[in-house]
Amino acid sequence: MSVTAAMGFEAAGVAAGLKSTGRSDVAVVVNRGPLKAGAAVFTSNRAKANPILWSQQAIQDGVVEAIVLNSGGANCFTGSFGFQTTHQTAEKAAELLGVSPGDVLVCSTGLIGTGDEVFRQKVLEGTERAIASLSDDGGVAASEAIMTTDSRPKRSERSQDGWTIGGMAKGAGMLAPGLATMLVVLTTDAVLTSDEADAHLRAAARVTFDRLDSDGCMSTNDQVTLMASGASGVTPSQEKFRALLTEVCDDLAAQLQADAEGASHDITIRVTNAASEHEAVVVGRSVARNNLFKAAIFGNDPNWGRVLAAIGTTDAAFDPYDVDVWMNGVRVCTAGGPDRPREEVDLTPRATDVLIDLKTGPASATIRTNDLTHDYVHENSAYSS
Amino acid sequence: MSVTAAMGFEAAGVAAGLKSTGRSDVAVVVNRGPLKAGAAVFTSNRAKANPILWSQQAIQDGVVEAIVLNSGGANCFTGSFGFQTTHQTAEKAAELLGVSPGDVLVCSTGLIGTGDEVFRQKVLEGTERAIASLSDDGGVAASEAIMTTDSRPKRSERSQDGWTIGGMAKGAGMLAPGLATMLVVLTTDAVLTSDEADAHLRAAARVTFDRLDSDGCMSTNDQVTLMASGASGVTPSQEKFRALLTEVCDDLAAQLQADAEGASHDITIRVTNAASEHEAVVVGRSVARNNLFKAAIFGNDPNWGRVLAAIGTTDAAFDPYDVDVWMNGVRVCTAGGPDRPREEVDLTPRATDVLIDLKTGPASATIRTNDLTHDYVHENSAYSS
Repeated sequence: MSVTAAMGFEAAGVAAGLKSTGRSDVAVVVNRGPLKAGAAVFTSNRAKANPILWSQQAIQDGVVEAIVLNSGGANCFTGSFGFQTTHQTAEKAAELLGVSPGDVLVCSTGLIGTGDEVFRQKVLEGTERAIASLSDDGGVAASEAIMTTDSRPKRSERSQDGWTIGGMAKGAGMLAPGLATMLVVLTTDAVLTSDEADAHLRAAARVTFDRLDSDGCMSTNDQVTLMASGASGVTPSQEKFRALLTEVCDDLAAQLQADAEGASHDITIRVTNAASEHEAVVVGRSVARNNLFKAAIFGNDPNWGRVLAAIGTTDAAFDPYDVDVWMNGVRVCTAGGPDRPREEVDLTPRATDVLIDLKTGPASATIRTNDLTHDYVHENSAYSS
Repeated sequence: MSVTAAMGFEAAGVAAGLKSTGRSDVAVVVNRGPLKAGAAVFTSNRAKANPILWSQQAIQDGVVEAIVLNSGGANCFTGSFGFQTTHQTAEKAAELLGVSPGDVLVCSTGLIGTGDEVFRQKVLEGTERAIASLSDDGGVAASEAIMTTDSRPKRSERSQDGWTIGGMAKGAGMLAPGLATMLVVLTTDAVLTSDEADAHLRAAARVTFDRLDSDGCMSTNDQVTLMASGASGVTPSQEKFRALLTEVCDDLAAQLQADAEGASHDITIRVTNAASEHEAVVVGRSVARNNLFKAAIFGNDPNWGRVLAAIGTTDAAFDPYDVDVWMNGVRVCTAGGPDRPREEVDLTPRATDVLIDLKTGPASATIRTNDLTHDYVHENSAYSS
């Protein structure tokens, strides 16, 4: 499972004292080759954390030897001192692994503004200890070390024709487009160039992580990284690799949604017959971000008026008086008016399906979101994160 | 107080049985002249309620004799039957008042999808009874009849040099730009053409109602109407009229914010030194709509990282590493790092002041919003509205 399911990878997770709970908080994933191809996508937030600024540079040559990840502090808005911390982390890992610092990516997650001298020392010591405990079954430990408010680690694995893709993810809040508060590391032993890895990762993320919009809040620290070792010796077709990578990303995205802070419903918003895929995404996202809709779902209330009110705020092509809305299989609105009685809709299951038929074109898209609950408010008001 | 503070207006509010509580739910405001100048601004939501569709047509000639408002049902997405209900409401009022139906505006508020035969009969009967009980001190009764989840009526009044502006408003949820779930009626006895009324109303709404963004959700039923009777015989200067109208609108907007569903903080977000007023508004609105920021304020947590993360999602000109953030007078972030300790910020008062200094230009803007609380989730999940 996790990032060591594919051949050619070692990983570890250790407790470095960054989390007050004493749980593990520093993870390292190393690619032992023979290939060292890498690709990464980053948060589109213009307020970026220091590890993002570092990793965006380091990924330029398409070579990734290792990635160091810490929870317990975002190292975001911590000034030049914080950037030096990231730099030193890469240098420390590179020195111990005998590689170039420019081929070591860094990820951090936790409270923005955390990144002082104590943080630095703990991260550096944790990196050293994690590298000392690397193993080819360390993927589980690594997946636990990147958890923040996650209630459980997220791991995925798929194999086909002698090659494997594995991955781990963390993220429970600040889940929104342009990625989410997610850190994801994907590994594969398929033979792949870094350009191919980049193209496949962007294509897969676009329809999975980018369409997870739990709470509309975009993180400063998101990074999804793919590392290819080529250790299987198998070169899959481009189509097969992209399909399997998308499957792994989708599985991890579903796990992130299922563990979203305080959520009681996993809502799948499917928009069909839109004029374009872009418009389908815009409509789905508008509904996903409507607090009144989200609160209604929490209350098991099939309040379709709030769906239409949200669609009406977009520029998408649609006729407000010719839209169908279905909830959990019941058409509650058609042709600008009520259809089946709202009592027929059972919203008690956690899995909630909203189907919006725009009747204006051939395109469709699906957005994953969650409801707005007391627990969401509690978790995000009672604790700094 | 309210819409009968200015000379030349009569109003009434009656209970027509639309609200299950038995409280008053139909209001009528009539302009007795001599002028009948009117102007209105409407929700920019493309999913518009039937009364909006009607009133947008009726306002074209700049003449408004009366306005009929009901709570207890939005008459939105109720098909052509719903539009006929609005039409019949205007015709009923016009017949009883001896005016043209095309000079009667209609407003409705309540649950989307409500507008059946029973609703129609109650609205028509209520309109008849309200017109029978019109009086020149009916403004208070009218302001009570338009309440939905409001805990108190909103009224305002200002006088200057022999002329007066008065107004009433309702709105507690779905408070967002392009107006809010607000119905507002403003009256004045100043001498004013309908073109002047239109220009002043748009200018005043732009910097008051349009900058109230309590929960990011845009209504389908919003309408702000200004009626001028000319009964004072005084023609104020354009500057004075606009200034006083803006003051009344600002007062009503503040009352709407103070009564927002479930809120425990009234948050004023001031964005200064932006490249343009538009960018200042975009930045302020982005912060106002960030659920993590809103939940933090509910928890009295000066979590400035969430402010920067929200700013970073915009296209506004700014350097993420040269922004100052102040909360209740304490600078908590400067130059891309922490400034004063968060413990110095006292967020226990309801009035919360967030100042964002973008350091990129001469423009500024203020957005009003509220925090995200347990009571907000409760009110919007436990009751359909």
